[in-house]
Amino acid sequence: MSRSLLVAQSGGPTAVINSSVCGVIVEAMRHQDIGGIYGAINGILGVIREELVDLREEAPLSIWKLRRTPSAALGSCRYKLRQEDFNRVMEVLTAHDVGYFIYAGGNDSMDTAHKVAMLAAEKKYDLKVMGVPKTVDNDLLITDHCPGYGSVARFNALAARDSSLDTEAIYTADTVKIIETMGRDTGWITASTALARENQDDGPHLIYLPERPFVAEKFLESVQSIYKRLGRVVICVCEGLRDESGEFVTASKRATDTDTFGHKQLGGVGDFLVSLVVSKLQIKARCDKPGTIQRVSGLCLSQVDMEEAYRVGQVAVSKAIEGESDRMITLIRRESAEYQCETGLVDLEKVALGRKPVPDGFMNRESNFVTPQFLEYVRPLIGGPLPEYARLRKKVLDKRLPPYA
Amino acid sequence: MSRSLLVAQSGGPTAVINSSVCGVIVEAMRHQDIGGIYGAINGILGVIREELVDLREEAPLSIWKLRRTPSAALGSCRYKLRQEDFNRVMEVLTAHDVGYFIYAGGNDSMDTAHKVAMLAAEKKYDLKVMGVPKTVDNDLLITDHCPGYGSVARFNALAARDSSLDTEAIYTADTVKIIETMGRDTGWITASTALARENQDDGPHLIYLPERPFVAEKFLESVQSIYKRLGRVVICVCEGLRDESGEFVTASKRATDTDTFGHKQLGGVGDFLVSLVVSKLQIKARCDKPGTIQRVSGLCLSQVDMEEAYRVGQVAVSKAIEGESDRMITLIRRESAEYQCETGLVDLEKVALGRKPVPDGFMNRESNFVTPQFLEYVRPLIGGPLPEYARLRKKVLDKRLPPYA
Repeated sequence: MSRSLLVAQSGGPTAVINSSVCGVIVEAMRHQDIGGIYGAINGILGVIREELVDLREEAPLSIWKLRRTPSAALGSCRYKLRQEDFNRVMEVLTAHDVGYFIYAGGNDSMDTAHKVAMLAAEKKYDLKVMGVPKTVDNDLLITDHCPGYGSVARFNALAARDSSLDTEAIYTADTVKIIETMGRDTGWITASTALARENQDDGPHLIYLPERPFVAEKFLESVQSIYKRLGRVVICVCEGLRDESGEFVTASKRATDTDTFGHKQLGGVGDFLVSLVVSKLQIKARCDKPGTIQRVSGLCLSQVDMEEAYRVGQVAVSKAIEGESDRMITLIRRESAEYQCETGLVDLEKVALGRKPVPDGFMNRESNFVTPQFLEYVRPLIGGPLPEYARLRKKVLDKRLPPYA
Repeated sequence: MSRSLLVAQSGGPTAVINSSVCGVIVEAMRHQDIGGIYGAINGILGVIREELVDLREEAPLSIWKLRRTPSAALGSCRYKLRQEDFNRVMEVLTAHDVGYFIYAGGNDSMDTAHKVAMLAAEKKYDLKVMGVPKTVDNDLLITDHCPGYGSVARFNALAARDSSLDTEAIYTADTVKIIETMGRDTGWITASTALARENQDDGPHLIYLPERPFVAEKFLESVQSIYKRLGRVVICVCEGLRDESGEFVTASKRATDTDTFGHKQLGGVGDFLVSLVVSKLQIKARCDKPGTIQRVSGLCLSQVDMEEAYRVGQVAVSKAIEGESDRMITLIRRESAEYQCETGLVDLEKVALGRKPVPDGFMNRESNFVTPQFLEYVRPLIGGPLPEYARLRKKVLDKRLPPYA
């Protein structure tokens, strides 16, 4: 007796969360056990509102194009289910005979999926619930990395390289460039900008993550010292930077900036560092803050990321059909010369609400850059090297005149 | 008797100014009349400092790769020559027997080139001076458009599309997205974000250019009305936005932010609009500000832009050899069904310091979006359509339950 499958997307969009949905749909279509293939509009909200769409009605080409379409095609949400919502979820799943519920998201979403799985078990409703990892933040526990991260890392590596070249080019213009990246609680995204550095004096020169407390005096010393040596400094900083007391260096005070999970919307760290540099060091500075553009850039898709996102979607369905439930698919990196990942399973409970910070060994002692170990970790995830740029030899002509005052 | 050619880059870097230098070098190598092929480091500063490099010593592959290398490989500058510097320029050109001086830049740079040409004429020093148009701002007079613009337009069209999809996806998160683009005095860059809009309700929904005074009340009305209809609003705004009195809506007060041309470094308009929306309409809002990343993105090269940048570099050299001087190469759009441009010449004096605003016919009456005429103008410049994304049909399932409160 065939039952329906329901897939939904949750949390911040990424460049490849649609690739996961593509993997879910394609795999679901292969199985006779699956009747309806449905999508919920705007994640769990679409479930409680009974806003479901029939994915079997989509053109095959549209489904295939999802692999390279950023953002969340079914719509996403940031909504924390209230206690009373859970019964409604069960009613809707029952009304549409949903036997498989696939939820793509981060740690909050895995908590939601876990609670749905527990309630179904309590009510003796036969439901296989599988979590598909998704987050640009790369902070889900246990999995080696999260689909969505490789692409945002590629964007930031490219952006930091281009922006550093921009700073290097202009003499007597802005000589301190701050690039503010996303990352509410962890520095994975910011750290990826280190991939921009190909030669010793390339930017970024300094990288600040929220895993280490920010000390303004040390920061200014580092900036000053690099400025003296190179005449320019490129600094990448995480929006979630915290001071020694654990407070956000700049947290928005606006009440409307708090979402229903109680998270603060951040922003402004870059401008804050600009002010610091200008006021304390009297050096010109400016800030680039690509914001949400970084997490959904269709142009910066990492091929590896896109394929892994597809695979975790596929495997989530095949495992659900095999009878697994209340689990999330993980990526496990093989110990091999060439980068390879296989998929694994973890109990949703173990990843729900948890958070993996950038480990100590990935940051240097001065807390102002990453280590070679981190670069080794992140390099394969961005799906191939950055495009090669020309570097001129610049053979200097002998001077024929005395120096000009 | 062969004489040397000197090429230099000036002003803000772009994605394709190196492609122009490539065109200059390749063309120069074809001519017996040209002996040394030199580059000045950091524009005119490299001339007065006699910091010149021998471009014949570069590997052919490096030269070719310049076509796809963003920023300014020879280094650029923002430096206004003092009266006494001009004599030094002549000394350096004379010492290295420079007979051809090719300067790539915007309106300030064309003024510099014009002054060098006049001084050479006055001193009866045989020098052919040619200007190569370059500016992401697209505000040079007479030329149909400026190399550098097509690529920044492509970046912003893509960024605005991705960022709009991001806003569309998340229910109950940020529902007003502000994207702040570059453009100190003109709105050409901001206007290009309109290319992101493929269907009627797509973002961006509102576009604000400095050519029309910003009126906060009208802005808030427009935001409110779109928000009521769609539940989201994407707004693209130019960093150089001005109010009815002609003042920058937010001008930085910091003295160090003023360069030697007396221009103010801007920034903060996006954050200012966020505050307006949050405080006056109580709607969540956030700002993306890609900053310098937009003007040097190696990934968003417009093929048309890259080829035209190469061509204006090439033609500058061939015209100098034919005896032209004190001129800038222009691009002239042919009246034809398919987009085609030929090159022309204009006196440097006519473009020096001048500025072409976005014309009235390219903006709508409400001053909050562009017209179809502008889209027709800009579309061919970005070098091919944006990559096609999946759009799901979303056939809604019949509801089986009463609505949920």
